[in-house]
Amino acid sequence: MSSDKGRRLRLGMVGGGPGAFIGAVHRAAARLDDRWELVAGALSSTPEKSLSSAKELHIPRAYSSFEEMARAEAKHPERIDAVAIVTPNHMHYAVAKVFLDAGIHVMCDKPLTTTVDHAVKLTKHVEQSGLLFGLTHTYSGYPMVRQMREMVLGGEIGPVRMVQVEYAQGWLATPLENTGAKQAEWRTDPARSGPGGCLGDIATHAYHLVRFTTDLKPLELSADLTTFVPGRRLDDNVQALLRFEGGAKASLWSSQIAIGEENNLNIRIYGQKGSLAWSQENPNYVRQSKLNEPDRTLTRGGPGNGTIATRSTRLPTGHPEGYFEAFAQLYKDFAELVAARTEGRAPDPLATLLPNCEDGLAGVQFIDAVLRSSSNASAWTPLS
Amino acid sequence: MSSDKGRRLRLGMVGGGPGAFIGAVHRAAARLDDRWELVAGALSSTPEKSLSSAKELHIPRAYSSFEEMARAEAKHPERIDAVAIVTPNHMHYAVAKVFLDAGIHVMCDKPLTTTVDHAVKLTKHVEQSGLLFGLTHTYSGYPMVRQMREMVLGGEIGPVRMVQVEYAQGWLATPLENTGAKQAEWRTDPARSGPGGCLGDIATHAYHLVRFTTDLKPLELSADLTTFVPGRRLDDNVQALLRFEGGAKASLWSSQIAIGEENNLNIRIYGQKGSLAWSQENPNYVRQSKLNEPDRTLTRGGPGNGTIATRSTRLPTGHPEGYFEAFAQLYKDFAELVAARTEGRAPDPLATLLPNCEDGLAGVQFIDAVLRSSSNASAWTPLS
Amino acid sequence: MSSDKGRRLRLGMVGGGPGAFIGAVHRAAARLDDRWELVAGALSSTPEKSLSSAKELHIPRAYSSFEEMARAEAKHPERIDAVAIVTPNHMHYAVAKVFLDAGIHVMCDKPLTTTVDHAVKLTKHVEQSGLLFGLTHTYSGYPMVRQMREMVLGGEIGPVRMVQVEYAQGWLATPLENTGAKQAEWRTDPARSGPGGCLGDIATHAYHLVRFTTDLKPLELSADLTTFVPGRRLDDNVQALLRFEGGAKASLWSSQIAIGEENNLNIRIYGQKGSLAWSQENPNYVRQSKLNEPDRTLTRGGPGNGTIATRSTRLPTGHPEGYFEAFAQLYKDFAELVAARTEGRAPDPLATLLPNCEDGLAGVQFIDAVLRSSSNASAWTPLS
Amino acid sequence: MSSDKGRRLRLGMVGGGPGAFIGAVHRAAARLDDRWELVAGALSSTPEKSLSSAKELHIPRAYSSFEEMARAEAKHPERIDAVAIVTPNHMHYAVAKVFLDAGIHVMCDKPLTTTVDHAVKLTKHVEQSGLLFGLTHTYSGYPMVRQMREMVLGGEIGPVRMVQVEYAQGWLATPLENTGAKQAEWRTDPARSGPGGCLGDIATHAYHLVRFTTDLKPLELSADLTTFVPGRRLDDNVQALLRFEGGAKASLWSSQIAIGEENNLNIRIYGQKGSLAWSQENPNYVRQSKLNEPDRTLTRGGPGNGTIATRSTRLPTGHPEGYFEAFAQLYKDFAELVAARTEGRAPDPLATLLPNCEDGLAGVQFIDAVLRSSSNASAWTPLS
Repeated sequence: MSSDKGRRLRLGMVGGGPGAFIGAVHRAAARLDDRWELVAGALSSTPEKSLSSAKELHIPRAYSSFEEMARAEAKHPERIDAVAIVTPNHMHYAVAKVFLDAGIHVMCDKPLTTTVDHAVKLTKHVEQSGLLFGLTHTYSGYPMVRQMREMVLGGEIGPVRMVQVEYAQGWLATPLENTGAKQAEWRTDPARSGPGGCLGDIATHAYHLVRFTTDLKPLELSADLTTFVPGRRLDDNVQALLRFEGGAKASLWSSQIAIGEENNLNIRIYGQKGSLAWSQENPNYVRQSKLNEPDRTLTRGGPGNGTIATRSTRLPTGHPEGYFEAFAQLYKDFAELVAARTEGRAPDPLATLLPNCEDGLAGVQFIDAVLRSSSNASAWTPLS
Repeated sequence: MSSDKGRRLRLGMVGGGPGAFIGAVHRAAARLDDRWELVAGALSSTPEKSLSSAKELHIPRAYSSFEEMARAEAKHPERIDAVAIVTPNHMHYAVAKVFLDAGIHVMCDKPLTTTVDHAVKLTKHVEQSGLLFGLTHTYSGYPMVRQMREMVLGGEIGPVRMVQVEYAQGWLATPLENTGAKQAEWRTDPARSGPGGCLGDIATHAYHLVRFTTDLKPLELSADLTTFVPGRRLDDNVQALLRFEGGAKASLWSSQIAIGEENNLNIRIYGQKGSLAWSQENPNYVRQSKLNEPDRTLTRGGPGNGTIATRSTRLPTGHPEGYFEAFAQLYKDFAELVAARTEGRAPDPLATLLPNCEDGLAGVQFIDAVLRSSSNASAWTPLS
Repeated sequence: MSSDKGRRLRLGMVGGGPGAFIGAVHRAAARLDDRWELVAGALSSTPEKSLSSAKELHIPRAYSSFEEMARAEAKHPERIDAVAIVTPNHMHYAVAKVFLDAGIHVMCDKPLTTTVDHAVKLTKHVEQSGLLFGLTHTYSGYPMVRQMREMVLGGEIGPVRMVQVEYAQGWLATPLENTGAKQAEWRTDPARSGPGGCLGDIATHAYHLVRFTTDLKPLELSADLTTFVPGRRLDDNVQALLRFEGGAKASLWSSQIAIGEENNLNIRIYGQKGSLAWSQENPNYVRQSKLNEPDRTLTRGGPGNGTIATRSTRLPTGHPEGYFEAFAQLYKDFAELVAARTEGRAPDPLATLLPNCEDGLAGVQFIDAVLRSSSNASAWTPLS
Repeated sequence: MSSDKGRRLRLGMVGGGPGAFIGAVHRAAARLDDRWELVAGALSSTPEKSLSSAKELHIPRAYSSFEEMARAEAKHPERIDAVAIVTPNHMHYAVAKVFLDAGIHVMCDKPLTTTVDHAVKLTKHVEQSGLLFGLTHTYSGYPMVRQMREMVLGGEIGPVRMVQVEYAQGWLATPLENTGAKQAEWRTDPARSGPGGCLGDIATHAYHLVRFTTDLKPLELSADLTTFVPGRRLDDNVQALLRFEGGAKASLWSSQIAIGEENNLNIRIYGQKGSLAWSQENPNYVRQSKLNEPDRTLTRGGPGNGTIATRSTRLPTGHPEGYFEAFAQLYKDFAELVAARTEGRAPDPLATLLPNCEDGLAGVQFIDAVLRSSSNASAWTPLS
């Protein structure tokens, strides 16, 4: 078990009111390792809802808008150490900017913004502010994802040649957005999601997973976007081929119309000496293959785990950790980064694995490149 | 996502100081759904350690002994709503008794006690006190375990004929207790664990799982206990055949010397019309078989889930929940039971699935029957 | 690919007429490696059927009874090299005896006989005759089963401590024998199957698998037989605990009422240093666990395979072999034994893995011991 | 079990001498169902080897060249019913032409030819000859592949939207062709394999699997070919995006440098109402998903199998069939086609599932289109 030590940090939250999925996940994740207290919130764009839902959730300092919250917290004697932004995508930029201006660290949901322009500006803004900015690419919090990164960067599979990555879901196989389903509505609405549907919602996770586990530098992509469900305003299926510096390649498929797939993010990384495979729906295992040896199965917490995976987990092997624990790892890393900053010391290197604003920019650039390639006969399109 | 509503209840803890595994699990589990605040603790039998570890864990009211804690809390204006007992087994009885006498509800780790005599007395004591008593048979908190129960009791597989249940681990395949490993030490020490080794530690979970999922009434068993590791003072392998009212039978195997097994609790329940299978290491799925139909895979949160499973989960399908979430479910149920009692209303029926003192008594009786059968040439031995 | 070299041997067959399952399997298995030609047959107890079905199957020498066949073949200039006995169990003894008396090698289906007395007599008869006698315990023909044997005997997992073996099917969960299903009829009929139902039909395979893979010497067992389907005349569920020389133990479960199980024979062997696991329904893999190392997956034809497994297979890794190929291996081994005998040379040691009459005797003794233990309150009963 | 009835047909073979992999597979496959006798052969391009290897394999009529064989067999009173062509790819055209000219039916390995020109000519030739021409796309012989076809064409998953197909191997991850490995040598040699490496060897199987299971009409593709192993003369990795009539799309990945992959051909077909998934390495199962229902697992021979799958199998459920049985199914179908032609009757419609010359042409066109697209910046390239 990881230590419970250290002062609890104070967290504020923007978005995540009643009916929101990801807000409740952020709260539970922040709670799990006992490093954060949720003390302030502007949970809804409707002031009354914002206040009432904060009360329901025992959040002591309730605000009717995020602007009010930023202003008030900036001056509060026990001001929040950081704010979590869990609104729909189109709000990320404005909210992040206001809190950075107030001198408050930010934890933001992905994708970073809905335009490359905003993403570039925000990245500069973060840089100039000197503040911390975390991006919740959940899946990089899984211990066995970190294990893969440690192994690839440690040369265990040799130079990477080929990556297969998929993120497939089936819940939008029908026009669910026309039935009043809130989660489906905003995710298929360009005004709130930005120009990518499946692309922004989940393909960006797949893209980040490739970058996170391999540190490969993407060069260009060829993509084919599809909207299979008639009347839908955004894509619901993404096919892309990618090329990286050094000659590595990848195939990426992401879909929300793949009936039978629940939240099937999976990756296989093939190098000159071996390969690694991982699947989010059974996340406690990595298959490791080496040339001319039997495959090995690494299990979270078990033999063969490196330092990073070992320190990114809480339970003994065989006691499965899941999605909440991966998400909690991001909040634990963020707590360490904030605490180290506060205490004027270098953070635990482990915590620097937390995705940041530049990862967010890369994600938005990916969205943009896919859109351009797809509308240009899948022409190879540069990724930066 | 489940609601975050309702007053946070106040929890105290006895045991679970530095280096303890299960104490930290109880704390994280209590925290996850935000229904409990840990406000008091006597975490160690050493007073100084007890105080220092409470401080480390931000527990405001630290006590140097559990007796002191019970006395003080009984009179505290914001007294704890319940106490969690997470000491080694031999202390459960004494600690539980003191808190029940102080009028405080109890959440206790398993096995209930180290003797049948104590288990019977404690059960009567609980009954007379009118207080709530929860027992953390973790695995009954898994949504898909509850799904199996709902299906079996709902007649979906017809009358049960045969149950195969296993709980296999490999971590004690060598004399780890001689190497200073704290977890191995107390679990193989009769003075702290009671007369069962593997039997009390994990076979009881397997036995409870059968009772929980089927409601079968056990009649008798034939058992063969083994200590494979030379010098070990308690059993490390349990084989048992069981018979139930109505003619159903079961095979139970539990081991801690099964190299390659991590925490492999699994159960298969065969009835006249179908069968169900579940495995703890991949706990988000149940295989359902029906006569002359293709097998179906039920997934946590997915189609085919009944009311109970649906309400015992937090995340959408495909986002894996694990051990912490199962454990948290027990604390959520316990919170509901305590809240309902406080508010003078009937609890949500779901919460009554929480294992209780009578389940603990049944577990201790199982331990006793296995010991007697095994020392009597595996003679069939009654289970009550 | 194995070599196709060597003279084709001549095979006769008794039993296996129209509607028989196992006869057709024997024929295809004998054919696969091109070492046998089926040239003679008495396929049915009804003379006309016997002749007509031989014609249908292009068997040149058709006989109206097995006695006639033995007499005629004994004198034939191109007499059969061996006979395959694929009748229901109650006929094995008589048929085998006649062909042995005629000086003809025998390949016999299991169980060897329906009584211990017959099994003992037949074993002596074989010994005195000096002839070859193969027993088709199919599952010992699987390359990965042989791989397990090679590893266990080579000390790779250390001394065996515990074996879990299961052979579960669900096809007899209802009284199928009352519906005219031929396979169900004879297998539940004591007159044709002998005193064991599920016990003789499939539990004997599980028992042999333990003996084959470990070479452990069984000492005694405690068993509980059940007939779950009302009106059935033989058992349909077998539970047994076993003890071996040197202290190893095993749990065996076999059932034909386990809805959802198709032909689920599986075994897990736990030793002091590691363990092995295999499942018949996905037979090209063995899971190998070692203390404090990640699990390895051995695949048929892949790295880590020993000499025996490598030589008992035909296809490259990833090209699955199945039941026919396992069965064919027995016929290939038998061909080598017969050819070596004919040529007056020592056989390839690999071929001596073919189960023989003594294995058949051990199986019949197992059936007998289970029956006696089960009718004697599961008392420990010696196994020889 | 399928029937053993009907006259055995006479088969000749060209290619497949000592050390050849696929020749031995063809022979075993032809043998399994007892419909073919191998009576003639020109197994090697070296006359002496051709004669000696025929002798070793008990082939009565040995020829020193395929031309001689065609001439002689054309006039033989018991001439072969068909010839199997199992040479390297570059010989297929010439051999097929000679035997067609001799009036003999042909079973040919894939790819059909090494150029589109030859493929077109051969297809016309077959058409004009009126003879039967089978192509051994092995994987279409698997019962569960046929089950998928039956379900897709029967509308069970609705109109197909998206197909994911992969055929990954790892055995050519190093320059094995430089070590004297015969299989690696010819498959990476443009003179013998044609212009496609991995592309012709296995990607064509993946492409055919999509066509076979869905009957979708391919329109165009965008492809990226890679040669990862330095010095290799042909591609060893194929990435392609495909578009079909009606709007369906597919991603295809095929590789021979994917360490850890053995013979991993797998397909997932997503339609408007459901999806199907199958994997060659565990070929007895199909996962079926339906909108808002739990997934079902169809097993070969089990409930839910349609007529075609049921009739394309030999063993009861749970008794695994594998690669040989899939291959044997093609020979069984071919036997039925030949027998029906001989007997002047319509063949069993099941047998018409055998891939034919037009499928071979489609495969060669696929190879050609991938080569053109890849050398043209992955431009969308028509597929016919």
